Amino acid sequence: MTINPTWLTELDTPYLLIDETRLKQNIGYLKQRVEARGSRLRPHLKTLRTLAAADYLLDSKTSPATVSTLAEAEAYAEAGYTDLLYAVGIAPSKLSRVAKLRQQGINLHILLDNLEQANAVISYADKQQQTFSVFIEIDSDGHRGGIEPADPRLIDIARKLGVHFNGLMTHAGGSYGCTTDLALREFAATECNAVLKAKQQLNKAGIKCPKTSVGSTPTAHFGEDFNGISEVRAGVYTTFDLVMKNIGVCDFKDIAMSVVTTVIGYNQEKNWVLVDSGWMALSRDRGTANQQQDFGYGQVCTIAGEPLTDIYVSSTSQEHGIIELPGHAELKDFPVGLKLRIFPNHACATAAMHQGYHVLMSDGSHNTWERIQGW
Amino acid sequence: MTINPTWLTELDTPYLLIDETRLKQNIGYLKQRVEARGSRLRPHLKTLRTLAAADYLLDSKTSPATVSTLAEAEAYAEAGYTDLLYAVGIAPSKLSRVAKLRQQGINLHILLDNLEQANAVISYADKQQQTFSVFIEIDSDGHRGGIEPADPRLIDIARKLGVHFNGLMTHAGGSYGCTTDLALREFAATECNAVLKAKQQLNKAGIKCPKTSVGSTPTAHFGEDFNGISEVRAGVYTTFDLVMKNIGVCDFKDIAMSVVTTVIGYNQEKNWVLVDSGWMALSRDRGTANQQQDFGYGQVCTIAGEPLTDIYVSSTSQEHGIIELPGHAELKDFPVGLKLRIFPNHACATAAMHQGYHVLMSDGSHNTWERIQGW
Repeated sequence: MTINPTWLTELDTPYLLIDETRLKQNIGYLKQRVEARGSRLRPHLKTLRTLAAADYLLDSKTSPATVSTLAEAEAYAEAGYTDLLYAVGIAPSKLSRVAKLRQQGINLHILLDNLEQANAVISYADKQQQTFSVFIEIDSDGHRGGIEPADPRLIDIARKLGVHFNGLMTHAGGSYGCTTDLALREFAATECNAVLKAKQQLNKAGIKCPKTSVGSTPTAHFGEDFNGISEVRAGVYTTFDLVMKNIGVCDFKDIAMSVVTTVIGYNQEKNWVLVDSGWMALSRDRGTANQQQDFGYGQVCTIAGEPLTDIYVSSTSQEHGIIELPGHAELKDFPVGLKLRIFPNHACATAAMHQGYHVLMSDGSHNTWERIQGW
Repeated sequence: MTINPTWLTELDTPYLLIDETRLKQNIGYLKQRVEARGSRLRPHLKTLRTLAAADYLLDSKTSPATVSTLAEAEAYAEAGYTDLLYAVGIAPSKLSRVAKLRQQGINLHILLDNLEQANAVISYADKQQQTFSVFIEIDSDGHRGGIEPADPRLIDIARKLGVHFNGLMTHAGGSYGCTTDLALREFAATECNAVLKAKQQLNKAGIKCPKTSVGSTPTAHFGEDFNGISEVRAGVYTTFDLVMKNIGVCDFKDIAMSVVTTVIGYNQEKNWVLVDSGWMALSRDRGTANQQQDFGYGQVCTIAGEPLTDIYVSSTSQEHGIIELPGHAELKDFPVGLKLRIFPNHACATAAMHQGYHVLMSDGSHNTWERIQGW
């Protein structure tokens, strides 16, 4: 049954729509998958950044979760969540906010990958008699930060951290470049091997490493064995998006996020439809531009969520979207006032353009969720 | 004198910084320029979207202004501004919000470019006994919407609108593709000629056209003659950005917006500096990618605002920025904790990522401005 309640067309556009049925399916599937392979999820909450979504993603207030800003950590802590990994390298000036949450009983873990950061943590910890929980970032793909598993600085940093050292973390951001199941499976194995090798190095040096954390949405969906890995992180799997479809992690029918828009005009000579969703509503993300299929600024769907073959938002300005119609489509099928849905390239980026979301509940009813803002 | 007060380095990063001195200079310059050439400004408020900035941009509460959403119109109306052009094609479902503001005494002008929209306006107006003020969009550059000056539909639409018809508007978005002063001057002339020609067509048909509105930041800065043009619109000139520098409209020293960031690590092997500003703080806008100089995700500056030659944010993820250092720069000059400023590619897009701004006042003191959100 396609649920298409009237409120979908009555709300002012543009607005961001979440499909609760798909959201629940996506969350349930990955949880079961990772647990069946010997680990557990530490979901990344950054995609939706709402208390309501955390309630779907986490079994209890003590379940592990990942955040990308201290503003999120503070909001989730306020709501009672107690096990949060702040997965961005820590800046010394942010330690006081971390310490404050830890003093409130929140197990907020921080991340670093160099001795300067470790020195700053130790200096603060000694001066303020503060205990921290620190993860060291391991580089498994040359993609961003982190140090390589065999790098001797790993031992130096862990030793420096002493009792504050709690684990190793890697992020397989490079997995976004994979296009085959085999490559994704291999990437997932590489990621696990990197932290397991780093843990071995530490053990050899007599340093205990309580936690190992890996993850990305593609590798969490393709890893075959997570034994020995404490936790797997993933974020965008909650709603998926066109980038994930291109990688092969999901299909259109799994995408739980769209932007609802209205036709506001056309350029008849050029066969263009104009809609009221520009990059302010869709984001500037062109994540599919270099993938196997370029969806422009998003895949156009009917208001019921059916993708319209080869119809994309071709270009955007701040509040205008242009849909260049392909040969098989006709302007007359897009009258002024028509409502459409647009699947996003990158759910995290599109969600970030909205203060809150409208939620199509499984029974067709309407809910609203407020986004946590700022840093 | 370079003002570099201590509060700049004490605030939590990332945050968006506005330089009041430069803002005032940019605003004052264009106002004087356009008035000296026979017209007046109708500033576009969409770049900063704050009541505080409107106060700098507009001489009085009755001064003309442009907005890109009804949410802005409602916020400015609430603050007492009475002459607002909503410069996005009107969707029929939004007419009730427009009517509500007009009933409150706000001269809110709307925009359209086709008969379907005009019919919707007339139908609403007749049913609700509502007067509107409608601008018809003219296409002067094939860039987005609007109809061409000689298109006979122009007469049909204006006639249909009757007493609700108030003027013609064009947006020279294509001027962003110009790279020489001559091309910009010609573009500005083309834009003016388009609306003047359209006005002539109307007059010939016996239709009075009270207002003509043109604009874009580049053409407002290069137009030589605005006689006969009621008003010139421009928005990003308030703060400028790297796209405008590449077009030749401003220099580094005029850019009044930056994102303040902190060094959080590096990849020593690759000579990369990692900062805590990803696309969440900088936006995904890569507007300089195809211009004469590609600034990546932004030009890196010292905390005092001095651009560092050839040092850009090379890539971003949600909360990470990577600066790939060029040969002449050394990692040791970017210690963990160092604060830097980053000039944005596109000020409108970067400002949109922030709920509010920190303002460096001309006397070095600190102010905060809150952004108007949503649609």
